[in-house]
Amino acid sequence: MHNIVYSQGGVCLSDGFFASGVHAGLKKEGALDMAFIYSVSQCEVAAVFTTNKMAAAPIKHFRSMGDVKPNFIVINSKNANAMTGIAGVEDIKEVLSNCPQEAKNPIMSSTGVIGVRLPKQKIIEGMKLFDLTKKDSSSAAKAIMTTDSFAKEIAFKVVLNDGSSFNIGAIAKGAGMIDPAMATMLCFITTDAKVDKSEMQEVLDEVVKTTFNAISVDGDTSTNDTVLVLANGRSGVYEREAFKEALFKVMHFLALEMVRDGEGATKLVTYKITGAKDDREAEIAAKALSDSLLVKTALFGEDPNWGRIASTIGASGVEAYEEKLKVSFDNLCVYDRGEILFDAEMEKKCAIVMQHQKFTISCDLGIGEGSFKAYGCDLGHEYVKINADYRT
Amino acid sequence: MHNIVYSQGGVCLSDGFFASGVHAGLKKEGALDMAFIYSVSQCEVAAVFTTNKMAAAPIKHFRSMGDVKPNFIVINSKNANAMTGIAGVEDIKEVLSNCPQEAKNPIMSSTGVIGVRLPKQKIIEGMKLFDLTKKDSSSAAKAIMTTDSFAKEIAFKVVLNDGSSFNIGAIAKGAGMIDPAMATMLCFITTDAKVDKSEMQEVLDEVVKTTFNAISVDGDTSTNDTVLVLANGRSGVYEREAFKEALFKVMHFLALEMVRDGEGATKLVTYKITGAKDDREAEIAAKALSDSLLVKTALFGEDPNWGRIASTIGASGVEAYEEKLKVSFDNLCVYDRGEILFDAEMEKKCAIVMQHQKFTISCDLGIGEGSFKAYGCDLGHEYVKINADYRT
Repeated sequence: MHNIVYSQGGVCLSDGFFASGVHAGLKKEGALDMAFIYSVSQCEVAAVFTTNKMAAAPIKHFRSMGDVKPNFIVINSKNANAMTGIAGVEDIKEVLSNCPQEAKNPIMSSTGVIGVRLPKQKIIEGMKLFDLTKKDSSSAAKAIMTTDSFAKEIAFKVVLNDGSSFNIGAIAKGAGMIDPAMATMLCFITTDAKVDKSEMQEVLDEVVKTTFNAISVDGDTSTNDTVLVLANGRSGVYEREAFKEALFKVMHFLALEMVRDGEGATKLVTYKITGAKDDREAEIAAKALSDSLLVKTALFGEDPNWGRIASTIGASGVEAYEEKLKVSFDNLCVYDRGEILFDAEMEKKCAIVMQHQKFTISCDLGIGEGSFKAYGCDLGHEYVKINADYRT
Repeated sequence: MHNIVYSQGGVCLSDGFFASGVHAGLKKEGALDMAFIYSVSQCEVAAVFTTNKMAAAPIKHFRSMGDVKPNFIVINSKNANAMTGIAGVEDIKEVLSNCPQEAKNPIMSSTGVIGVRLPKQKIIEGMKLFDLTKKDSSSAAKAIMTTDSFAKEIAFKVVLNDGSSFNIGAIAKGAGMIDPAMATMLCFITTDAKVDKSEMQEVLDEVVKTTFNAISVDGDTSTNDTVLVLANGRSGVYEREAFKEALFKVMHFLALEMVRDGEGATKLVTYKITGAKDDREAEIAAKALSDSLLVKTALFGEDPNWGRIASTIGASGVEAYEEKLKVSFDNLCVYDRGEILFDAEMEKKCAIVMQHQKFTISCDLGIGEGSFKAYGCDLGHEYVKINADYRT
């Protein structure tokens, strides 16, 4: 058995990793807007990117790099470098040619407004402020924020049975998961585990399914969505199950942080589907609930409107029957296979559940063994306010 | 050639049709909450219903009626009679057994809260207030409203080349098309055209595609969505093309009225996709735009955020390329196959377009011949307010 211990340090916990955020003048009033992550040793890298057909320039550039071992990531907020065509990729090359000399095969990552050329000069000047001896994960986490209301980082020390250990940590940005179809998420994970590249990619692909993909819709992502894992191997230690579990903990935590930070969100709701025809149908139903505007606004109004839940499942396209469905708010069953248990008293009880910051809406479809958990938040006035004025 | 002339009268314009709304005590403060539509002659009927797996009791009841000729529709608002199982259908039978004696094969239709049994006694009492000699389409249109902010009706007189004519008219309810996946729409169309039942169904199926389905997502509808056409044949006149064109005019008008009345909406936007691989892909892309929360909130903020438009198309799953796409606000092209034409001056011009109550966002995908127009509205604070408190 292994032990996974929460630790401070974010992306800088792992041996040989450094990171920090700087102000390059992209955001106003001295706010941090650029960050680097640097490893003293070159790294194996695994990545998952958006499936958006308009993938941004940094993703195109990464894909053109081939099978190399990078040790440096430059990240900027405020500008996504998306819809910028070949010029956008050329801009990245020029920026990266100005990296500190320690950088090998550097990677660039961007988030912000779509459709505006990268402010190259500001970024190149900003890179001059990078201090590669800094282990300041928190400032890097702050620098990559856009509409996020708080910075997101996490780290764990993983101790194996024989007492040997490795570390894993991450920073991420992402809010606005109210509309997962569009909210850009970036996540940078660093580890000193001695993991093989292809195995790391395999594990990452698996873990994404139940973490970031549980708050987002398959194949329906922003132009810039990126998860990057850098492994410098400096611990000399690796064990697949321990690594996978630790990676899950990192990504699950950050996924829920993103939901919790949904623009204007006040509640974190788990949508638990069981009894679906198969896991895929459970996933479709769970995401239909977490994406429904009418469910979200009912959450915000703390209105236990279970009819909207049933209707959303009915509209999602999955196999479902009125006489087989069960709907519960936490452990309060309001509809049980044809029987409406929702009376005035139950309504009061459910309304109390909905006043909590976290609760679970469960639907048993009563058909098969398929299950899935999705995570979502409510939609309130703040969401409209933030997104109506985003570019200004 | 034929001539289609706008007329007053709604569902009562056609010869032999009567309608009116009454207050049965379902809504508060004397508001109209029940309506009837009655034809002195029995009618051919065509219908399109929701594809929601949780189709409401009135739809199940209609489907069980078989091939009959009705002349009477009872409609109530405030209660959807959905998720009410066999009991919900039994409730309808009991209600309809209390219809005025003139009613033959009566149909019931409901809209309102899901998951609450029909208040049968109030409805049966309400039916006693029906006056079958009334031609008051407007009050019927009012009675079927839920969150609608205005009543919706339309009628046309169709004059054929030889001077003969028939009439067609309708009432409808539906707002909240901001989330087409869930907003209930009802539409009742009456005509005195002498149309064959199967041909009427065929024409209706065709016309639905470019009207109500252009404001809604295929297969992704509320529990109660209904379009019913009653034809009593009393004009003795029919001509297929004229009938189809008139039916399109009726349904197109009402579909746009629903969008215009989107809960809290302030703008009516046409999303015009051209150059898609095929019409189906154009439809997917157009609806992705009209459904996108981030596009909707940008509209509300009058922010010409064309990057969100490009990203939404990229995320929609249709074939699309950054270097082939064109994006325009009305006739202002902001992005032309790789070239960003959006500068400070263009931004000002686009912002002026977006201040209009109606405008068009066009995207040419530059691939094939596929095209589709979808219609949508913006999302503002009012939407959240209305839907957070819907049941209360």
